[in-house]
Amino acid sequence: MQIGFVLYPDVTALDAVGPYEVLSRIPGVHAVFVGQARGPVTAQHGLTLGVQLTFGEAPALDVLCVPGGPGQTQCMENQELLAFLRRQAETARWMTAVCTGSLILGAAGLLQGYRATSHWRYVECLAELGAIPVSKRIVADQNRVTAAGVSAGIDLGLFLAGLLAGERVAQTIQLQMEYDPQPPFRCGSPELADPDLVESLITGSQRLFGERCEQVRRIGAALRAESAGSLGTAP
Amino acid sequence: MQIGFVLYPDVTALDAVGPYEVLSRIPGVHAVFVGQARGPVTAQHGLTLGVQLTFGEAPALDVLCVPGGPGQTQCMENQELLAFLRRQAETARWMTAVCTGSLILGAAGLLQGYRATSHWRYVECLAELGAIPVSKRIVADQNRVTAAGVSAGIDLGLFLAGLLAGERVAQTIQLQMEYDPQPPFRCGSPELADPDLVESLITGSQRLFGERCEQVRRIGAALRAESAGSLGTAP
Repeated sequence: MQIGFVLYPDVTALDAVGPYEVLSRIPGVHAVFVGQARGPVTAQHGLTLGVQLTFGEAPALDVLCVPGGPGQTQCMENQELLAFLRRQAETARWMTAVCTGSLILGAAGLLQGYRATSHWRYVECLAELGAIPVSKRIVADQNRVTAAGVSAGIDLGLFLAGLLAGERVAQTIQLQMEYDPQPPFRCGSPELADPDLVESLITGSQRLFGERCEQVRRIGAALRAESAGSLGTAP
Repeated sequence: MQIGFVLYPDVTALDAVGPYEVLSRIPGVHAVFVGQARGPVTAQHGLTLGVQLTFGEAPALDVLCVPGGPGQTQCMENQELLAFLRRQAETARWMTAVCTGSLILGAAGLLQGYRATSHWRYVECLAELGAIPVSKRIVADQNRVTAAGVSAGIDLGLFLAGLLAGERVAQTIQLQMEYDPQPPFRCGSPELADPDLVESLITGSQRLFGERCEQVRRIGAALRAESAGSLGTAP
């Protein structure tokens, strides 16, 4: 079984490495990292991660995972990446995304009519791309599985491992990874965090948020026009 | 502030990327990846991660983090790496390790007399290296901070972020990363897991475990001989 992870400049490393660390432990799974060009890409904050296969070289993958990160905005308009996702979606068993990676899936038109989640700050944006936003850590709808922000990719990995290889395998991996999380604070979601903390994060990211929303609206409008066009020309 | 992460062939990617994802978000922090040679190293299961500075090139770092992984056994006998760790320990504010990374710190003689933890399967081995094993997710003793297996590196990152930049910064990062973990199963530690599952993991890793124990005993004996020697020649 081949599981692909999309990499791009300014990806959030943990978005990809969380589910990779889980899924690559399933017996018989081969993990591959796919991107625009072979070689290193620099993730958010400077770590380099290696792309093994280009979008053109990648075979039909059983599972594809699209991570989020600041570079997601460029990805939303990368036609080669979007075409790759649409092509893979025709045959993949599971199309998945972590954090703002779901906005990329959405920009490819792959979440229209599907329930989906994203980072808590961006989950509502999914509606512009035709998805039904659901504020949950993991959302599965048919063969689309999406996860909330960054660290939620580990939970997504274990959820998928259960589906792909059975609960016993998933549990073995969870114990191997000693995934008995003990966050030092109770503030990992807007529901748990002090409203003051939530407010300051919202205020501090207002400009980036505005730009991302504007882009999502524009791409969403194009997707709707395209759908209307293809409906109009249907026999 | 410069925070270094040691990379080596067959490192467990999440051991390094978990704390990196947290610590690199602290304002003013620069994360660097240090290894034997510049360029890509292949982590466990195939992902490549980029080394930016060699052991010789790295400046004195404020914090150093040593991840674990199957390649830890080679690291335990890599004199260049061990000398690098000892050199950094003379000036670093915090010397840290995730998972079996603590065995590497121990092999460098840097945990003698310190309380420390490791992956649940290996924590008791620390005694051979002169440390006091403590079965906890995070163990801090003076300026040594160690974490349990793989995923515990995220908790270590947040704990350290609190020490380095204050609780408010750590909490902001936790909310940014949406770290409100919801593991699908209750089996992430030997205490929580079905005894049957623990037993099968122990049985399945018996050979590797035996080899690692044997190596740790041998290195521990050499460390004790060295300590006795230096005591003997003290003025």
